[in-house]
Amino acid sequence: MIRIDFQNVLDSKIGARNGLSKSFLNDFLKKSEPLLKKVLKSEDKPGYAFLALPEDTKTVQAIHKFAKSQKGKWQNIVVLGIGGSALGGIALQDSILGNWHNLKNKPRLFFVDNIDPDYVESLFSMIDFKKTLFVVVSKSGGTVEPMALYAVAKEKLLKTVKKTFRQHLVFVTDPKSGILREMGNKEKIQMFDIPPNVGGRFSVHSAAALVPAALAGINIEKLMRGAKKMKEEIKKSHGEKNPALLLAALQFLMDWKKGKNMVVMMPYSNRLYRIADWYRQLLAESIGKNSKAGPTPMAALGTTDQHSQLQLWQEGPEDKWIIFLRVLNQASRLKLGSHLPSEMAYLKNRAMADALNAALKGTAESLAKSGKPNCTIELNQINEETVGALLFLLEVQVALLGELYGVNAFNQPGVEQSKIMTKKILSR
Amino acid sequence: MIRIDFQNVLDSKIGARNGLSKSFLNDFLKKSEPLLKKVLKSEDKPGYAFLALPEDTKTVQAIHKFAKSQKGKWQNIVVLGIGGSALGGIALQDSILGNWHNLKNKPRLFFVDNIDPDYVESLFSMIDFKKTLFVVVSKSGGTVEPMALYAVAKEKLLKTVKKTFRQHLVFVTDPKSGILREMGNKEKIQMFDIPPNVGGRFSVHSAAALVPAALAGINIEKLMRGAKKMKEEIKKSHGEKNPALLLAALQFLMDWKKGKNMVVMMPYSNRLYRIADWYRQLLAESIGKNSKAGPTPMAALGTTDQHSQLQLWQEGPEDKWIIFLRVLNQASRLKLGSHLPSEMAYLKNRAMADALNAALKGTAESLAKSGKPNCTIELNQINEETVGALLFLLEVQVALLGELYGVNAFNQPGVEQSKIMTKKILSR
Repeated sequence: MIRIDFQNVLDSKIGARNGLSKSFLNDFLKKSEPLLKKVLKSEDKPGYAFLALPEDTKTVQAIHKFAKSQKGKWQNIVVLGIGGSALGGIALQDSILGNWHNLKNKPRLFFVDNIDPDYVESLFSMIDFKKTLFVVVSKSGGTVEPMALYAVAKEKLLKTVKKTFRQHLVFVTDPKSGILREMGNKEKIQMFDIPPNVGGRFSVHSAAALVPAALAGINIEKLMRGAKKMKEEIKKSHGEKNPALLLAALQFLMDWKKGKNMVVMMPYSNRLYRIADWYRQLLAESIGKNSKAGPTPMAALGTTDQHSQLQLWQEGPEDKWIIFLRVLNQASRLKLGSHLPSEMAYLKNRAMADALNAALKGTAESLAKSGKPNCTIELNQINEETVGALLFLLEVQVALLGELYGVNAFNQPGVEQSKIMTKKILSR
Repeated sequence: MIRIDFQNVLDSKIGARNGLSKSFLNDFLKKSEPLLKKVLKSEDKPGYAFLALPEDTKTVQAIHKFAKSQKGKWQNIVVLGIGGSALGGIALQDSILGNWHNLKNKPRLFFVDNIDPDYVESLFSMIDFKKTLFVVVSKSGGTVEPMALYAVAKEKLLKTVKKTFRQHLVFVTDPKSGILREMGNKEKIQMFDIPPNVGGRFSVHSAAALVPAALAGINIEKLMRGAKKMKEEIKKSHGEKNPALLLAALQFLMDWKKGKNMVVMMPYSNRLYRIADWYRQLLAESIGKNSKAGPTPMAALGTTDQHSQLQLWQEGPEDKWIIFLRVLNQASRLKLGSHLPSEMAYLKNRAMADALNAALKGTAESLAKSGKPNCTIELNQINEETVGALLFLLEVQVALLGELYGVNAFNQPGVEQSKIMTKKILSR
């Protein structure tokens, strides 16, 4: 389902300056295996509980049932959430439903993840509130943005649908604590739980992303099946055959041994781009701690960003490494046809997918030739199962990175100061 | 129109570890002024010719006239271009027309900047080719992606609109050389020029972006007026009052004196986000050269990415600095109303714009308090003039950075190797 090609991080391929020796890597993998075991045994501990989500069939069934009851009722599903309460859902929307979903299909699915008044007002003035279901997602219930967005939406709902406003609302939050839970109880709103020990950025396999996904028609059972399969693979495989162990080791060694303080995730697929964006939060917030650690993750898109970032990667300072995402079997068999200039005759009647994958390969090899480390995560195809598996894999990688870097991967104390100062400014 | 607040890079505010002393900065600005003068005098040299674009009223008039002749004819404008041939146009679309343009208005404006078959096929199957104008943008005419996309579009045009296909095509390219110019001449296609000495990533004030912009209804005269005003300001002002000089000095010193190998551009405005993305190419491709130089630019969005990246910036390694973009007068006066939880009573009936700008200020101050350098570019409001000015300002900054870093800001030799290897793979 998912395979990792890591030849382009080895010294035999890219030289000793930036490359790792195979024996050193194998040694490191062996030494890190107990840490992975520790992570996998921590399902009931704060933060680590995301590991148990693939088995939570009860929640999946409940969401599935609810989504079925809403089918055909809505033109728009509007999710009010930010950070981990939006990025997972967006990644699922783009990867499974494709990039043009909202221009083609109903219900349209919008993630409103900012308090930019222009952005919000122009969306809210465009959609028919009578045909819109709002899903408010906030683990803590205390985040300002979704609550501010909810306040605006509720005011307009009360004006447009009046007493039936409850039917236009779903809350997804902690099962017991927090303002959103309180408000939902008081107002008798349909609610779904994010398990207490699951953090926002690790919540893509929980109701946080599954509720919007199911409402938009994504097969969440298959998504969870993919995550479960990946979990089993991670549990039973060893050394370089273990994708979570391997990816964590590569990231850690590229940073600490080779001084790469940046990592780029670059899918050659528009549908997968927002997964790189989701990963950006996952890695940055989990590992960026205590001044001592924190690779900076970046998202890029192939081939697009070959014409934007590749020059810097190829000839600039050697301060980053790249993770490519490759789709082996593209569903589309679109051909390039014959209307090409003679200079590009080699492309004649080729599948566009072949040109895309050749560009990935050409770029990876070109970087390797210049001694720039990179690896490629290969997905058999894009569907619920592979996406569910990939997201789970990356979550386990990051949890394991917490152990390797020696930081708590599940908190984010650094964002508090900004909130306090913002509140102070507004309270003046 | 545009002001730069740089208090949060000064040692008096953030300490000497990461801060610059005012006297050192002033000294550096003084020493760099001759380099800016040199840049401004180079309008007729390869690369630097973007500096002359704001005075090119003839081109603007020709594009305006053409756009007028096409008004009401099309449901879709589809731009086939990549890198500099797309990013400028996308930045204009989002900033001037807003984030939801394609869901609200006609003609819709699409930038197809990838050869992902799924992405392309699903778009092409959705739009009515009889109501679609294709704009092929390629400075050199030799870039694979736009030519491949053109081949696919032409095949479908020949099937759907048959002999009238010429009326569905516009080419924007070099006035004399290149495959696209040749093809246009042969097929008698409507063409516009990108001046020979203007490079792709510096072409946003040329036909490359102005043709799509004008076709979608953007006032390109005002856009150019903004650029012209900015040019005059850059020509006549000195020291810290000169925005291009100041921004270039800050970037250079943050990198070379303070070791920040990353720079984040973070607009607190969804409309301005793609300007940060455009800047990402501009800076990376222009300065990432010769192993000796190359800050890595990143795009982030406020407040959204406070919930994704801020933790890392605040508590992770001190390897980056931040450029915020702030809109002083938001057009929308959307209010947060009264349906807020009591814990957020301080937001009651406040304008959402105030909450957004307070979050920017709170974040900037919070970073400063921890010694993390940042500055804020303030735009009076978002419109054609301010956007035209901002883009021009950033272009001059990057041209000047070429002088400071001692690299040729106008070539991109590092992307050739990947192209050669890709071709080899496909020719096998």
